[in-house]
Amino acid sequence: MEKIEQTVASIQPLDEKTMEEARRRQDSLTKPRGSLGQLESLSIQIAGIRGNPRPQIVHKVIFTLVGDHGITQEGVSAYPSEVTPQMVYNFLRGGAGINVLSRLVGARVVVADLGVAVDLKHHPDLKEKKVAPGTRNMAKGPAMSRAEAIRSIETGIELVEEELPRGMDILGTGDMGIGNTTSSSAIAAVLTGVGVSRVTGRGTGLGDEGWRRKMEVIQTALEINRPDPKDPIDVLSKVGGLEIGGIVGVILAGTRYRIPVVIDGFISGAAALIAAGLSPQVKPFLIAAHQSVELGHRILLEHLGLKPLLNLDLRLGEGTGAALGIFLAEASVRILNEMATFSEAGVSEKI
Amino acid sequence: MEKIEQTVASIQPLDEKTMEEARRRQDSLTKPRGSLGQLESLSIQIAGIRGNPRPQIVHKVIFTLVGDHGITQEGVSAYPSEVTPQMVYNFLRGGAGINVLSRLVGARVVVADLGVAVDLKHHPDLKEKKVAPGTRNMAKGPAMSRAEAIRSIETGIELVEEELPRGMDILGTGDMGIGNTTSSSAIAAVLTGVGVSRVTGRGTGLGDEGWRRKMEVIQTALEINRPDPKDPIDVLSKVGGLEIGGIVGVILAGTRYRIPVVIDGFISGAAALIAAGLSPQVKPFLIAAHQSVELGHRILLEHLGLKPLLNLDLRLGEGTGAALGIFLAEASVRILNEMATFSEAGVSEKI
Repeated sequence: MEKIEQTVASIQPLDEKTMEEARRRQDSLTKPRGSLGQLESLSIQIAGIRGNPRPQIVHKVIFTLVGDHGITQEGVSAYPSEVTPQMVYNFLRGGAGINVLSRLVGARVVVADLGVAVDLKHHPDLKEKKVAPGTRNMAKGPAMSRAEAIRSIETGIELVEEELPRGMDILGTGDMGIGNTTSSSAIAAVLTGVGVSRVTGRGTGLGDEGWRRKMEVIQTALEINRPDPKDPIDVLSKVGGLEIGGIVGVILAGTRYRIPVVIDGFISGAAALIAAGLSPQVKPFLIAAHQSVELGHRILLEHLGLKPLLNLDLRLGEGTGAALGIFLAEASVRILNEMATFSEAGVSEKI
Repeated sequence: MEKIEQTVASIQPLDEKTMEEARRRQDSLTKPRGSLGQLESLSIQIAGIRGNPRPQIVHKVIFTLVGDHGITQEGVSAYPSEVTPQMVYNFLRGGAGINVLSRLVGARVVVADLGVAVDLKHHPDLKEKKVAPGTRNMAKGPAMSRAEAIRSIETGIELVEEELPRGMDILGTGDMGIGNTTSSSAIAAVLTGVGVSRVTGRGTGLGDEGWRRKMEVIQTALEINRPDPKDPIDVLSKVGGLEIGGIVGVILAGTRYRIPVVIDGFISGAAALIAAGLSPQVKPFLIAAHQSVELGHRILLEHLGLKPLLNLDLRLGEGTGAALGIFLAEASVRILNEMATFSEAGVSEKI
């Protein structure tokens, strides 16, 4: 817990003076004021995070964290748990959606096993950080111990710290874990205070009956475990996931090291709720990549006060939305850095 | 007119068989079906346009067409007309928003003078295609002659044909012309049939009084000229612009040569309405890059049956939104081409 406390204690607010400087520069560029909309505000946010009025985005990292979920025993997913390790090997061979989009935007992908149920084969690009071989079935008791929940968050912090020396101007979060929308819906229900039916979607593709079953299972998990909404680590341990805890740590560390944090979809959003519960100072460092089709994501983003950049009906996870968000973040700082000002270009200003 | 008629007559529908093949491949890739949302449908559309189930996007071209508007005499813009040529020089020096975003996405920018009011200095990268030195004041009579309107469309077709030998896997449309949101609102009012107030926005930044004045001026232009909604060239000549006519030609030629056409914001949208009026077969070739803040853009896109990819409160024009749309189009075909299939990756399918 000490590492988490130290990280949270080191978080500083955005640099307002730098943001003002970036805003003035945006207003001096050869375009009507505000005409690049969210790209302008995004560049100003990134300037404030980096403490640099002309920030550059060169080194981009996406953390794709993986864990299994005991709740899959209850039949809440359209895919079997064996897909979790299979997809890890797909990530390591470069064949998954996140690999394709990361190559396109020039991001490194860090794949880490936080809690895959089976032993994975060693691979030079796999971060072996298993906290436990999957969570336990939260419909029958806590998904993990408090110590495991803490360890998963600390592991996320460590992953960022290990990658920092290679350069990191922006980071994206991603997830893989069959069953993890169920866990995320449970987290969202507890931390936003809305009913389970408003935050539970069809995951990777449930039919109507499976969907109803998923909601019942979440209701059961909440009744049995009674997670305390005032204690985010209690929520994580009782109904969360190991990869979700890892993402919480990645978000906290990104914030602590003043790196813009692009959060992916619903699972990363649930992790962001927990991170913001541990420190509300996290919120201004977050960039919501997209509005997922997953029911509940909108409520979750509103709760965090975030406006998503994209709305492309994505629901894959892995960090795929984050990769697209990183591209838009890069576009925003390129505009800030590379456009000519009215005086440089000899263009007349507004009448 | 012959060139326009030939172009329209050569348009063929999307290749349904190829689209089916692309759809089957999308469904075989290691992700839940449909989980990449609009990226999946976009890749299938591009496959159908190109007639290739595994299309590649390497050569990207953005056409930024420029023209002046006589209507600026009525005080409908927040910027003086002299900004039009100043921005052309900014484009040619690489300092404008479109230059920055085109460099980022690896697109060539073709800057063409279709109707700047003053003589521009020669520049190797400037396409000198002036049809007339700006339009006339449409509040006092037709903006241009029918022959000029036809010539502007033909010029757009020629621009695409001249660029084709250098390679073109996708194209984006863009505009620059002080006063051109006024013209576009007039076009939108005529061709969608809604009231002027529903399609007239604040352009580059009008206050309340300027906005009311702009609506009055458009109303006057429509009453004086009585453009015939059944005759798109009549609409273009009476209340359009030379760069808007050029964009109509770019859209028609893109469609005829089976190149996906990414349309930028409100001005390109007005041009697309005219192009779709000349041939409804144009529509399936269009990709709407974004939903502009400019009032009326939504109505215009609905009229075209297009769902925008982005909604970032952009209103700059130049093709900036199209550049971002081209990135998403490239992302979509990279997914189609580069992701592993379930059988290649040894990943289990849905239970």
